[in-house]
Amino acid sequence: MTDRTFNVEGMSCGHCKAAVEEELGKLSGIKGANADPQKGTVEVAYREDQVNDEQIKGAIEEAGYSVVA
Amino acid sequence: MTDRTFNVEGMSCGHCKAAVEEELGKLSGIKGANADPQKGTVEVAYREDQVNDEQIKGAIEEAGYSVVA
Repeated sequence: MTDRTFNVEGMSCGHCKAAVEEELGKLSGIKGANADPQKGTVEVAYREDQVNDEQIKGAIEEAGYSVVA
Repeated sequence: MTDRTFNVEGMSCGHCKAAVEEELGKLSGIKGANADPQKGTVEVAYREDQVNDEQIKGAIEEAGYSVVA
């Protein structure tokens, strides 16, 4: 299992948090996701053999936010 | 038809706008609702014989925001 924290711009409220976590939940291999609008972070626990960083960033962007790191 | 603009605190993004407008849409007599998170306003067009201000404020609060005026 891999844990990684992504820096994400544009999340402002609980709806944003839910939108990001829901989008990540659609990916296989995601074991947990915790978006923090106040910190501007999304912490993701995932299986590297099932999903990669580009797919995770893609899901966050699909939800409408920018991944800055 | 009556038009009234309510001042509402706590809306921060498009999700908030949608949540408020959706909740207002559940009330009878609402002919239009436009929430503006940047201005902190919710403009509502409604039929006074079908719905009153208290019900409108109640719906906005149900969506999770505070009506300040």
